Amino acid sequence: MISRLQLINQIKQKKSFLCVGLDTDIEKIPAFLKEYPDPVLEFNKRIIDATNDLCVAYKPNAAFYESRGVKGLQSLIDTWKYLPKDCLSIIDAKRGDMGNTSEMYAKAFFDERASGMSFDAITVSPYMGHDAVTSYLAYPGKWVVLLALTSSAGSKDFQYLTTDRGLLYEAVIKKANTWASADRIMYVVGATKSTEFTNIRKYAPDNFLLVPGIGAQGGSLADVCHYGMNKDCGLIVNASRSIIYASNGEDFAEAARAEALNMRQQMQAELEKAGVV
Amino acid sequence: MISRLQLINQIKQKKSFLCVGLDTDIEKIPAFLKEYPDPVLEFNKRIIDATNDLCVAYKPNAAFYESRGVKGLQSLIDTWKYLPKDCLSIIDAKRGDMGNTSEMYAKAFFDERASGMSFDAITVSPYMGHDAVTSYLAYPGKWVVLLALTSSAGSKDFQYLTTDRGLLYEAVIKKANTWASADRIMYVVGATKSTEFTNIRKYAPDNFLLVPGIGAQGGSLADVCHYGMNKDCGLIVNASRSIIYASNGEDFAEAARAEALNMRQQMQAELEKAGVV
Repeated sequence: MISRLQLINQIKQKKSFLCVGLDTDIEKIPAFLKEYPDPVLEFNKRIIDATNDLCVAYKPNAAFYESRGVKGLQSLIDTWKYLPKDCLSIIDAKRGDMGNTSEMYAKAFFDERASGMSFDAITVSPYMGHDAVTSYLAYPGKWVVLLALTSSAGSKDFQYLTTDRGLLYEAVIKKANTWASADRIMYVVGATKSTEFTNIRKYAPDNFLLVPGIGAQGGSLADVCHYGMNKDCGLIVNASRSIIYASNGEDFAEAARAEALNMRQQMQAELEKAGVV
Repeated sequence: MISRLQLINQIKQKKSFLCVGLDTDIEKIPAFLKEYPDPVLEFNKRIIDATNDLCVAYKPNAAFYESRGVKGLQSLIDTWKYLPKDCLSIIDAKRGDMGNTSEMYAKAFFDERASGMSFDAITVSPYMGHDAVTSYLAYPGKWVVLLALTSSAGSKDFQYLTTDRGLLYEAVIKKANTWASADRIMYVVGATKSTEFTNIRKYAPDNFLLVPGIGAQGGSLADVCHYGMNKDCGLIVNASRSIIYASNGEDFAEAARAEALNMRQQMQAELEKAGVV
């Protein structure tokens, strides 16, 4: 369990707000790992060992594990067990459903006795409204990371619709702020939307924002920080492919570390510029 | 694989448009089943045996299986294997994510070689737009069942927002109709919204609508049919708790059959009234 204050302290101490996305695709990991009983787990362990002093969060993407059935779920459970407890663990699952179903998803990702896993946070889709969110918040200290403005092309289809309560993504943030404070809700805001961060900070001045889309998707870290950082940092910037696939050889973990170090250095400069550290 | 035409023929033949929701909660199934190696699978098999001539679809709710970790996923896979191939198999998973992630979810639920399962259809949340949907449509003959207007209280939070393209749920239907035809997309419309069906039929005259919310949630079958049925029926009405938990004793399967039979009789009357059969 990682509180808001612990997260802020961790960012100041490590001078980093990096989240490493464990979108581990068995087709893309180095071939020599195939000899291990669980190549995906072995890959993740080495990535975690190589990066945990440089990042504040890990975010396995559930889809990549579910695509391999029972074996994949076992890799996810074993990866969760291996995550360092001082880093925020986020399951990127985007589950949103009505109350009695969201309770079951909460068991799946927050209740170790039921499922073998207990992440600190889960990404949730807002379309079904408060039922989709409140079941997760019933777990003391756990976080909901709600989709607001996502990084891919499809974000334009609905998230920018003008509604009678502002743009749809603004309406989502305003409504969700009535369900829980910045101690329990974060929002997903894509790095490819950097100029929108000024607007988002009007509605979510204190919330942490989970920011995908740096690297492979083309977002700029400097822009995200310029428009989105608040006095406590307030950002967790995710990088997946650019770190975990930095090399496809036996040196993949060292290459991942080099890339994470590169990002941490840029992050330190941004934190200093903003006076957070 | 079940085409639109096959589904319509099946409805006419069975005089039913019932979907049995397999929201199987290990805490709620009869105690005597606990002696079986997989009590959830045993429960599902007996429910399927008792109802498959009375319904046209089965819809396992992924959350109920995921909440039990690896054991639960194995129950889901084995349940999928047991489903009769002439019934539409819908995985109620509500997964919506960007392209490369939706591709992985598609593998998880549509690609038996990857995950052990290949459902005919999957429920998807629209918030992330077309990326969230098109990866599933890349599988020939598979269906996307997109959330439009859901049955629980949280549906009021965003789905009814007035946007510059109509109410949000209308905007979702209008946009999604540009991604695929009624041969590949269905919409979720809650039975508790029966008077809205007239409006929905303006935008989705030919699509099948998957309708949860009859029974435990209070929706009326007669109202749904009055406002929502089209010339091919165009409705798949789901019932979960009212059928699968009709009895908590050793007679649970017989009780489930009696309840399914009762619904099928009401459905036959509605189909006859509308001139579909």
